[in-house]
Amino acid sequence: MAADGTIGEVGEFGLIERLTQSLAANAHVIVGPGDDTAIVSVPDGRALVTVDILVEGRHFRRDWSTPVDIGRKAAAASLADISAMGGTATSLVVAFAAPADLPAAWAMQCMSGLAEEAALVGASIVGGDISASDSIVISVTALGDLAEAKPVLRSGAKVGDRVALAGRVGWSAAGLAVLSRGFRSPRVLVNAHRFPEPPYAAGPLAAKGGASSMIDVSDGLIADARHVAEASGVVMCLSSTSLEVPEEMRATAAAYNVDPRLWLLTGGEDHALLATFSGKKKLPAGFTEIGVVEAAGEDGPGVVVDGIRDNSRGGHRHF
Amino acid sequence: MAADGTIGEVGEFGLIERLTQSLAANAHVIVGPGDDTAIVSVPDGRALVTVDILVEGRHFRRDWSTPVDIGRKAAAASLADISAMGGTATSLVVAFAAPADLPAAWAMQCMSGLAEEAALVGASIVGGDISASDSIVISVTALGDLAEAKPVLRSGAKVGDRVALAGRVGWSAAGLAVLSRGFRSPRVLVNAHRFPEPPYAAGPLAAKGGASSMIDVSDGLIADARHVAEASGVVMCLSSTSLEVPEEMRATAAAYNVDPRLWLLTGGEDHALLATFSGKKKLPAGFTEIGVVEAAGEDGPGVVVDGIRDNSRGGHRHF
Repeated sequence: MAADGTIGEVGEFGLIERLTQSLAANAHVIVGPGDDTAIVSVPDGRALVTVDILVEGRHFRRDWSTPVDIGRKAAAASLADISAMGGTATSLVVAFAAPADLPAAWAMQCMSGLAEEAALVGASIVGGDISASDSIVISVTALGDLAEAKPVLRSGAKVGDRVALAGRVGWSAAGLAVLSRGFRSPRVLVNAHRFPEPPYAAGPLAAKGGASSMIDVSDGLIADARHVAEASGVVMCLSSTSLEVPEEMRATAAAYNVDPRLWLLTGGEDHALLATFSGKKKLPAGFTEIGVVEAAGEDGPGVVVDGIRDNSRGGHRHF
Repeated sequence: MAADGTIGEVGEFGLIERLTQSLAANAHVIVGPGDDTAIVSVPDGRALVTVDILVEGRHFRRDWSTPVDIGRKAAAASLADISAMGGTATSLVVAFAAPADLPAAWAMQCMSGLAEEAALVGASIVGGDISASDSIVISVTALGDLAEAKPVLRSGAKVGDRVALAGRVGWSAAGLAVLSRGFRSPRVLVNAHRFPEPPYAAGPLAAKGGASSMIDVSDGLIADARHVAEASGVVMCLSSTSLEVPEEMRATAAAYNVDPRLWLLTGGEDHALLATFSGKKKLPAGFTEIGVVEAAGEDGPGVVVDGIRDNSRGGHRHF
């Protein structure tokens, strides 16, 4: 489809028409884009709902990422939250604000990235809104379905539970370190910063496998383990040696004189899933044991790494 | 609750904690703010979902509106879309981006405005996300419930239907005209620009009353009538004399040498409801007849005002 001109030239309605033409609908979509609201089926009677907002210069840079990458990253942030409750995303609505001189093709490629990422879990884009703004802002709301499962909250970790991780940590942080130094390789790290590869399927598997708590690791492993610890009133004891340093990360860390475990423990935006499991049952596919839940002592709930209490407020800060 | 300092000083998590403390939950909220996602009950099995994005300098100005006003306006845009499908909003999720030097109190008052407006229809704020940005951006997603009703789409207007309007039109445009000239009165017009007063209840009433089509008038009466005309393949014939010029508007229009009907016919952001009804039945409470649906001739679907085809692309443009 044609995409010449800027979004200012194409106009709001022209852009909406072009964007929505390219969208495919899944079986959950009762009414798709183009009316006052979309209508999505929620057979379970409970809708999971979450929103994430990405801002140019804070969450992405146009000179570092393609519009498709940025769309994928924006969708992944919300889709991973749905997985972290044990659900499967069914639909997205997208609010998009951008300068009038943005090429319409950029907006359409970004929308393609959003739709591609959503398609990984079978979700569709069902609606949106567009406005002018000084810099690009993308806000993605995801709806999800629990398929009769019990939601896995942050507050369910119990003393004695095993702590387990699915998906990658530290990759986006390592990629950011590469890009920040003006390099474009190793490509595998740079790509990990451009868009994450969350282990979407591991979320519903964890719910079926009896996970007692779960969280999307978006701020960093320690920071998000602390969210679980505080919600559950426990201490999350992590073993850093259980986190293997990926070969791809090792050489770059050495070259930059960085301890790669810093990336693994504090890097955000990879959207791994951190969960706790009671009993001795085999962990669901994709999960690796990385620690144990202990009782909160006089220091209260918190995180212990390799036996040492972590009192940093590590993790990404938006302000 | 305390709200000293800027949002940069309070920090993302501090701000989230303060904001969520003030939120009340309705019966639809299964899991509220604080986990990876919220969970909202959808007893009907179908969720209405819509998003609107408001950008500082485009949709509001901090020197013209209070943070409460801006929160109300942001919520109203999405809540009115739910009404326009014949539904009732149950919950909102809010993405909020702002400069780090914004007073935390401003953000909290804006959230109060959002919550107050939502409470008008019994909806709660169930989740959100916060980021830093250069200017304030508020993206509000609303979920709504049809309560077994048939959704009222834009595409259902039939030849011979009566066209009817509930709520105010032109008030926000008149208020903007006042503010743009540097005045602060008449206060009733200025307030109408600061936040709308959509006729939320009229939406579900129209659905029960057999409305054949409906739309939220956010771009302007002619512009939104055209959306219905194009979706339904009809001509919407409006009678401008059926729109009474409010007394409050008359003197201001005269002083500014403006035809007040221009405000009534093209002013956006009041979030009136424009609907069509078949047959001769009494219109639902709140609706006034303002025209009739006719067949599209060789000019195709469109809008006729007082017998004259309107070929402007009137209405608010974001780019």
